[in-house]
Amino acid sequence: MSANDPHISGAAAERRPMRRDSNTGRLAVLDQTKLPHSVEWMELSSEADAARAIVDMHVRGAPLIGAVAAAGLALALDAEAGDAALDAAVARLRATRPTAVNLAWALERVSEHVRPLQPAERAAAAHALADRICDEEGARCAAIGAHGVALIAGAAEAKRGAGPVHVLTHCNAGWLATFDYGTALAPVYKASEAGIDVHVWVDETRPLDQGSRLTAWELAQAGVPHTVIVDNAGGHLMQHGQVDLCIVGSDRTTAHGDVANKIGTYLKALAAHDNGVPFYAALPTSTIDWSMGDGVAEIPIEERAPEEVRVVHGVDAGGARGALDRFAAATAVSNLAFDVTPARYVTGLITEHGVFDASPEGLASLRDVHAASEG
Amino acid sequence: MSANDPHISGAAAERRPMRRDSNTGRLAVLDQTKLPHSVEWMELSSEADAARAIVDMHVRGAPLIGAVAAAGLALALDAEAGDAALDAAVARLRATRPTAVNLAWALERVSEHVRPLQPAERAAAAHALADRICDEEGARCAAIGAHGVALIAGAAEAKRGAGPVHVLTHCNAGWLATFDYGTALAPVYKASEAGIDVHVWVDETRPLDQGSRLTAWELAQAGVPHTVIVDNAGGHLMQHGQVDLCIVGSDRTTAHGDVANKIGTYLKALAAHDNGVPFYAALPTSTIDWSMGDGVAEIPIEERAPEEVRVVHGVDAGGARGALDRFAAATAVSNLAFDVTPARYVTGLITEHGVFDASPEGLASLRDVHAASEG
Repeated sequence: MSANDPHISGAAAERRPMRRDSNTGRLAVLDQTKLPHSVEWMELSSEADAARAIVDMHVRGAPLIGAVAAAGLALALDAEAGDAALDAAVARLRATRPTAVNLAWALERVSEHVRPLQPAERAAAAHALADRICDEEGARCAAIGAHGVALIAGAAEAKRGAGPVHVLTHCNAGWLATFDYGTALAPVYKASEAGIDVHVWVDETRPLDQGSRLTAWELAQAGVPHTVIVDNAGGHLMQHGQVDLCIVGSDRTTAHGDVANKIGTYLKALAAHDNGVPFYAALPTSTIDWSMGDGVAEIPIEERAPEEVRVVHGVDAGGARGALDRFAAATAVSNLAFDVTPARYVTGLITEHGVFDASPEGLASLRDVHAASEG
Repeated sequence: MSANDPHISGAAAERRPMRRDSNTGRLAVLDQTKLPHSVEWMELSSEADAARAIVDMHVRGAPLIGAVAAAGLALALDAEAGDAALDAAVARLRATRPTAVNLAWALERVSEHVRPLQPAERAAAAHALADRICDEEGARCAAIGAHGVALIAGAAEAKRGAGPVHVLTHCNAGWLATFDYGTALAPVYKASEAGIDVHVWVDETRPLDQGSRLTAWELAQAGVPHTVIVDNAGGHLMQHGQVDLCIVGSDRTTAHGDVANKIGTYLKALAAHDNGVPFYAALPTSTIDWSMGDGVAEIPIEERAPEEVRVVHGVDAGGARGALDRFAAATAVSNLAFDVTPARYVTGLITEHGVFDASPEGLASLRDVHAASEG
């Protein structure tokens, strides 16, 4: 399975950043560190491969890392499937990244599913469930888009053709972060499919540039008009009426409606609030941590290596990939990966079950609907 | 005059990014596009050299571009000093950058000073006045530091030794932006000189990285502890009590107290307000535009080339300078250089005359004190 494998490279068109070949069972993920300069797939043939793909952010995005962890657990069970091996693999995979709750959620789900089975049956069942998680996340994204498109349609109606609806997004919460439609981008894709004139302001999203590298690439593939801006620019645009609504993803959402997402999200929510711009988080219920209330106090925030800030990657004038250090040698750097936006700055949560208030009451209502849907 | 000229390279130690050799009359500026990887001086021998240094941001910072424009006008008068030539040079230099008001202020001042003189006397008088502007800006910075250090001392007192006073700053408003002590960094340098334990969070400041390249370099030269963060991080730090006060510079301040500064400043002011962190702008009165009230509506915001966002500069593993393109080829980019922070989010203005409220009343009071000091 390589970048040139036609069976796999076709997956880009399918908007699926992880896939398992139905004939051979081999797993591959789209290497997001290489985008937008090249589209390369990485084979995952062991738990260690899956863990490394998550830690080094070849894959990222809360729903996707949940799915990759589930597949990684299945690969671990391919090698050894006893209870002790199962528990150890869950613990190792859970430790790969701390902030997104999907990782724990997906591992828990696979673990509970296979534990009652005989060891010899566990790996196959785990692979099948990992596949199902991918399909379910894809279906949730489509539903998020179906609910969220009404917000964009409403903004278009209010503008009565006075230019496109301008949506600002931070980081990448498109299909590269999950499956099929993405979360924050799902309403945008659905609006575009419906012929609504929509334009996206893409926050560059330092330090890893998930906006300028990934969201811009996704939107270009889909033909959705967009403009990259530095993370510093959104407030000015909102002051000047250039943003109609903000939609971001979420790595973990608490039962009070606080939203952990890529560092810098909170600053955009403050600017939206100051300028009367609606600010939505789009998320599948799999990213909700029902055990937490105060997200600012409770959600663990990952600190990553300083090199992610100081070293930048790109292509030179001849198109060759390279890396450059932008700093003086001895400079100290802090690299926190997420922040938490308090619920009071979140206009609503766009979920697969509809749009809910970011409040304890809104979340309780969502929980009831979700339980009924699973019932 | 070259990078190796000992007379000029000594200027770095003097914290002066522009200097005129007292023997030869030759002018040089520190090339800020080359920092922090090398310290290089550029000779300015014509008005065109000065204009290019401003437009291409070899020099930047409101007080400094005022001083360089004044020197550029003197160089223009070296070549031709009639009334028409004077007016034309003022118009050309004024057009180099639109947002900072010091450019117009310094040109106006030199122009008014030399116009009553015979053409043959104008160039020498202009050079002398440009020199005086540099000295005056230096003196203003020292006074800003003397007034602002009390705010840091007060924070240190309140913390009673519970760690350093953490100051967050955006962009570079140190001596590289003006002379001697800088504006936003003047209170920090004075605090450090006074033995106060102070640490600076340095916003990277995309797209041109004036924080990570210039502020971090300045602070390292002075031995002031500091940590570079991405522009996205400050809100999270404030939510978690890691910032005691914010101090930024200003490119133009209105008579109502609105503050134009590097894009992204507004977002930090919102976060400071949300978390009860004092937010100060430090500025000489030369950056005040007494003719303007509503800064958001009235201050012109410069839009610069998209290449500043898409191409990054640094050094490779071997220490060689290089540039890399980070984006997919066709990506649209918007690059606005400044934003405006409304006065309601500014705790106070630290000026050479003291700390004033960012309000029409505060500015009126400052204007009276300033007029009296000039009277």
